[in-house]
Amino acid sequence: MALGDKVRNNQVLLRHFVTGFPKDSDFELRESTIELSIPQGSGVPAVLVKNLYLSCDPYMRTRMAKSLQVKGYVDSFQPGSPISGYGVSRVIDSSFPKLKVGDYVWGFTGWEEYSLITEPEKLFKIDHTDVPLSYYTGLLGMPGMTAFAGFYEVATPKKGEKVFISAASGAVGQLVGQFAKLFGCYVVGSAGSKDKVDLLKNKFGFDEAFNYKEEPDLDAALKRCFPEGIDIYFENVGGKMLDAVLLNMNVHGRIPICGMISQYNLDKPEGVHNMAMTIFKRVKMEGFLVFDYYHLYQKFLETVLPQIKEGKIVYVEDFAEGLENGPAALVGLFSGRNVGKQVVIVSHE
Amino acid sequence: MALGDKVRNNQVLLRHFVTGFPKDSDFELRESTIELSIPQGSGVPAVLVKNLYLSCDPYMRTRMAKSLQVKGYVDSFQPGSPISGYGVSRVIDSSFPKLKVGDYVWGFTGWEEYSLITEPEKLFKIDHTDVPLSYYTGLLGMPGMTAFAGFYEVATPKKGEKVFISAASGAVGQLVGQFAKLFGCYVVGSAGSKDKVDLLKNKFGFDEAFNYKEEPDLDAALKRCFPEGIDIYFENVGGKMLDAVLLNMNVHGRIPICGMISQYNLDKPEGVHNMAMTIFKRVKMEGFLVFDYYHLYQKFLETVLPQIKEGKIVYVEDFAEGLENGPAALVGLFSGRNVGKQVVIVSHE
Repeated sequence: MALGDKVRNNQVLLRHFVTGFPKDSDFELRESTIELSIPQGSGVPAVLVKNLYLSCDPYMRTRMAKSLQVKGYVDSFQPGSPISGYGVSRVIDSSFPKLKVGDYVWGFTGWEEYSLITEPEKLFKIDHTDVPLSYYTGLLGMPGMTAFAGFYEVATPKKGEKVFISAASGAVGQLVGQFAKLFGCYVVGSAGSKDKVDLLKNKFGFDEAFNYKEEPDLDAALKRCFPEGIDIYFENVGGKMLDAVLLNMNVHGRIPICGMISQYNLDKPEGVHNMAMTIFKRVKMEGFLVFDYYHLYQKFLETVLPQIKEGKIVYVEDFAEGLENGPAALVGLFSGRNVGKQVVIVSHE
Repeated sequence: MALGDKVRNNQVLLRHFVTGFPKDSDFELRESTIELSIPQGSGVPAVLVKNLYLSCDPYMRTRMAKSLQVKGYVDSFQPGSPISGYGVSRVIDSSFPKLKVGDYVWGFTGWEEYSLITEPEKLFKIDHTDVPLSYYTGLLGMPGMTAFAGFYEVATPKKGEKVFISAASGAVGQLVGQFAKLFGCYVVGSAGSKDKVDLLKNKFGFDEAFNYKEEPDLDAALKRCFPEGIDIYFENVGGKMLDAVLLNMNVHGRIPICGMISQYNLDKPEGVHNMAMTIFKRVKMEGFLVFDYYHLYQKFLETVLPQIKEGKIVYVEDFAEGLENGPAALVGLFSGRNVGKQVVIVSHE
């Protein structure tokens, strides 16, 4: 295909706003076409990209609902339009001086084969291609930067502290645990299957791990794993787990709140009853978004790229092949079907 | 009475651990006697004090229960023994070099006429007696220091920010509001009666105030008072109010958690459902205790004493006369019977 050709551009659309758990059928695949060049005369710099890898992330659930109108947060998807999210793409046309044809980029793109990106200044150019490109949807992309900022900047860890991570085998959790181990912390994770618990202990080097679905008493499970209490809880799930953690926090403990995946599909989120523990134990809870920390991205790369190459950090990805399998992969996040970072492969090159 | 005399020493005892709302009858007055001198040969420095003013504070509810075993927090009261709390006292005997007979002090003491204090190094010597001594149970004591630390250190305010305070006419709240106004913030408070709301608006200079008992929809009340959202919520009550506030916080808002008086008497605290808002809005919630900030006490005095003398800060106290009326005053906190800082006068001199 040459620049200017008109080609097929399959897209994933949201059919309608979602309540409850999302289903594959809340999405549809639409075949459209696109001309492989940037439209003339728009006046603003743009890039046309071929999408290679799309990232499935829990926060995307909030974008499937109409009601979440929060200033400063990402917008909801529009029913009848392609959804968007993080992805890795190759530039095939550019009127933006900092990006040229052939460059690889990561950042917000459409769930489609080709995307015209009109805010190219928000893309990250990929300079290091000697690691798997899919890593820029996870380990070296938004989730990796989230883990890095949440652990080092928000949790402000000290060597020897006791760290608990929920959804610990996920895109963010697996990294937080490895960062914490390298930093000299005692690290425990929870996950939702035996396979995931095995990964935590045997692949990611967690000190302890448990399957929350097999623990009738989360408070007891935490007391078993943390006889000396929890200093840092990296919060990915919310609800009952947060309530149990609050009973087990140490004085001056910190809770970076990264996500609450157990709550996003509920009409009314579960109540958290033990908030007064934050007073008695002087606990800091801090919700954060990676957007506020992207100025640290170069520092992050300089830290993590060598660790990857030296084998000190590993990363588990779960691939769905083909855009048509994207909706099932995305929806699978909310039943914990993925093992590790969920990626959709749109194209291998 | 002379040093060495044996005199009456009425005491307030906890009869038994309390569940639910505390009642006067959970306490009893016991008449005992005490010798007005420090026992010989104990080997540790001590002071014997005459108690003048006792402080009624919401945190004391947690000490009436057995179950709250939190390392680093204050101990529970012991049934059958006198309760303790903050108070203002006069030294009548001392084997502690830094305090001499006639000195006034504030700090932890017993709910009794005279107390032998065996940790005198924890007392604060009162150097400024040209203000009402009762102020050292409130404005110039633990609650004042709590307001100062919570507002300036935990909330890290910026001029022009929008501040909401619950239990706003209480010992801490009335001060937080005045600090915030002096700092250049927009300030709204909630309280539980028309009289208290009038105080907030007319005496303490709040921009707006509402009676939470007359607001069927707390979210709507907050939206009415904060069309531009809340930057700082000074949390004194917990439960439903916190849930409503979370819906109205601005991006990068801060919630110093000082207390949760609405929750202390409940067998199971209310659930807080809107915790995910802390992520979308990057909100920091931080439980704190004044103990961690007493190193700022001199700075606090240097700031606040001139403000009192210049009339820039006022303070409303609610006095109960006589130790025998102490239990009713203490219990009254939990139904909001007090207007302003609740003090028990044990003796006027």
